[in-house]
Amino acid sequence: MSWLDVPVDHPFGPATLPYGVFSTAADPHPRVGVAIGHQIIDLPAAVRRLAPGLASAVAGPSLNALLAAGPAVWAEVRAQLTTWVTEEVYRDLLGGHLVAAGDAVMHLPFTVADYVDFYASEQHATNLGRILRPGQEPLTANWKHLPIGYHGRAGTVVVSGTDIVRPSGQRPLFGPSQRLDIEAELGFVVGVPSTLGQPVPLTSFDQHVFGVCLVNDWSARDIQAFEYVPLGPFLGKSFATSISPWIVPLAALDHARVAPPERTVPLQPYLDDEKTPSWGLDVHLEVRLNGHVISTPSFDTMYWTGAQMMAHLTVNGASLRTGDLYASGTISGGSPGSLIELSWNGQEPLLLPDGSARAFLEDGDEVVISATAPGAGGATIGLGEVRGRVVG
Amino acid sequence: MSWLDVPVDHPFGPATLPYGVFSTAADPHPRVGVAIGHQIIDLPAAVRRLAPGLASAVAGPSLNALLAAGPAVWAEVRAQLTTWVTEEVYRDLLGGHLVAAGDAVMHLPFTVADYVDFYASEQHATNLGRILRPGQEPLTANWKHLPIGYHGRAGTVVVSGTDIVRPSGQRPLFGPSQRLDIEAELGFVVGVPSTLGQPVPLTSFDQHVFGVCLVNDWSARDIQAFEYVPLGPFLGKSFATSISPWIVPLAALDHARVAPPERTVPLQPYLDDEKTPSWGLDVHLEVRLNGHVISTPSFDTMYWTGAQMMAHLTVNGASLRTGDLYASGTISGGSPGSLIELSWNGQEPLLLPDGSARAFLEDGDEVVISATAPGAGGATIGLGEVRGRVVG
Repeated sequence: MSWLDVPVDHPFGPATLPYGVFSTAADPHPRVGVAIGHQIIDLPAAVRRLAPGLASAVAGPSLNALLAAGPAVWAEVRAQLTTWVTEEVYRDLLGGHLVAAGDAVMHLPFTVADYVDFYASEQHATNLGRILRPGQEPLTANWKHLPIGYHGRAGTVVVSGTDIVRPSGQRPLFGPSQRLDIEAELGFVVGVPSTLGQPVPLTSFDQHVFGVCLVNDWSARDIQAFEYVPLGPFLGKSFATSISPWIVPLAALDHARVAPPERTVPLQPYLDDEKTPSWGLDVHLEVRLNGHVISTPSFDTMYWTGAQMMAHLTVNGASLRTGDLYASGTISGGSPGSLIELSWNGQEPLLLPDGSARAFLEDGDEVVISATAPGAGGATIGLGEVRGRVVG
Repeated sequence: MSWLDVPVDHPFGPATLPYGVFSTAADPHPRVGVAIGHQIIDLPAAVRRLAPGLASAVAGPSLNALLAAGPAVWAEVRAQLTTWVTEEVYRDLLGGHLVAAGDAVMHLPFTVADYVDFYASEQHATNLGRILRPGQEPLTANWKHLPIGYHGRAGTVVVSGTDIVRPSGQRPLFGPSQRLDIEAELGFVVGVPSTLGQPVPLTSFDQHVFGVCLVNDWSARDIQAFEYVPLGPFLGKSFATSISPWIVPLAALDHARVAPPERTVPLQPYLDDEKTPSWGLDVHLEVRLNGHVISTPSFDTMYWTGAQMMAHLTVNGASLRTGDLYASGTISGGSPGSLIELSWNGQEPLLLPDGSARAFLEDGDEVVISATAPGAGGATIGLGEVRGRVVG
């Protein structure tokens, strides 16, 4: 319990302490904030008063300085924050640096360096294989040997709340996409860069990755279908990718770590995590379409962990940069994280409680993906939400 | 002819004036330079003295400010430079701001925002289709309807001269790539950003794109072969992409503009360039392996132009950012721009004049790609070179 009257099971209670970038009408400069209940701590202002040695790590209009500062500083900032929100003596000291979340505008929390999208859910890959290649083995031959991934467009990663303009393209007839879809994913945010030519072992995951966010990887299935052979998705994905405004540090997910599903083929040593602490994560998502819950996928079903994705991404010597974002791919264990699966390629439209039916998204539709994970002592760790509305 | 005694047919004569970023032992701060013959104009220093109004456009450790400044400033800077190097009266004024190219270290010329790689050579796509899918139609059904492309890794774009560490990966056995290859390409450098949700018409090409460079898109064919179905190339390409240090502005290529090859299927209006001035480019490349010329591809054979690539890239509403780099894909018209084509998938190794044979690259091999284009009045426009050596 915090003197802020935020109960421990509140998604943004004292065990979560996620980082974002906000501004207010009173002070329109984007700056780093920490969510606590329905309030935001103005972190640079609080640090100036309470921990001036940390000022440079939380300065600037994005989280990039904090991301680059590395694990020791991440731990120190979190320890300070935990003290401030739990010890009554800080009531007066911190009080002047709190902003009502409702008064804040949230910004893209960090400058995205490279954006990679994986394909790490066995359920999703199997569903898409069955839908797109009926009669064949649903998983490709490589799928259980490596986490398949591809690079997406970093410049069109947008913060939750940004309207999504329906893309046009060759389907193969030219026109607005008629099969606009969502993909509910977890994103990993890289803090500490690595050296070109040097693979990063999976045991170094928490030395490089700062935290996680929610990702909606909007997808135009008709544009993608015509373009993607032989070089993969391009315009079917590049028009927009939405992320949640709050980055939850890995430290908040300590109690959500679980063993990943049993691996059914032996892994190369650089991917073998059997003898290392698991980075499976017990994160539960909820996907709402126009207010109605349409799916509740669970990240603990993912075949590949975030640590394995990082190890794979760098095993060829590719380097990490501060602000790299890599997403898990659609999470479809528990229930599917995309409409193409939920409506089985549009053949079985979803019936919504308001009486309407959806195979794919219509103009005006709003999708909200939220998530929580278990914390210590019954605490709830909230990942917040990623929200977007389709405009024609 | 210039008072600098650089003949008009020198690749870096007064008609080229390419931009790069350099430093020297005497002044280790990376700064913008312009190549003229075997010298480099220290542009910020020269501008401070001769055109102080342009100082902000050429400030900083990269070309990004100049890229973002837009076509009017690009034209003004080039007009000033042309005057300085051609009019005798500037001999004394400019003389103090010249550095011998041999004394300069060249740096990555701009911060790469997103990196996209196209596949725009019909000869290359046909060759790869024949090699990888024998007995089938070599071009995929979409190939003549749109310029196929995919996103690559911006964070591993390196400047010419950077050693290339041989990547390891699943081939499917894990180990160092045994089929390390080159791809000789032309790159387009975006200056002026565009708005998310708004396609950029191909007629706006020279309002957004600043200039071109040479690209060597190093490729590990064995890693790529195992990973690339169904989401495209990833680790087979992401370990390194080399670019030439000198960016040649579009204005220098005015006389190199030619009609692209005849299109054999009708194009969607957003790609149809029949009634607009052509952006085919008469650029001649030379690929050398350990000093021996192994190929001389020509960009004028490319089915898709840089303007069409830009229009396609944005037709779904994806935005451009300052520093976006998009490459043409391997140029294989005239002669092939990759070893997998030159050695026909390794079956017909190249015999080099030194008596050695190559199917793919060996440790210690050095590849240099250079290029020239015709300028006005018999001038030669040089694109310089992109160089890289393989280390084990």
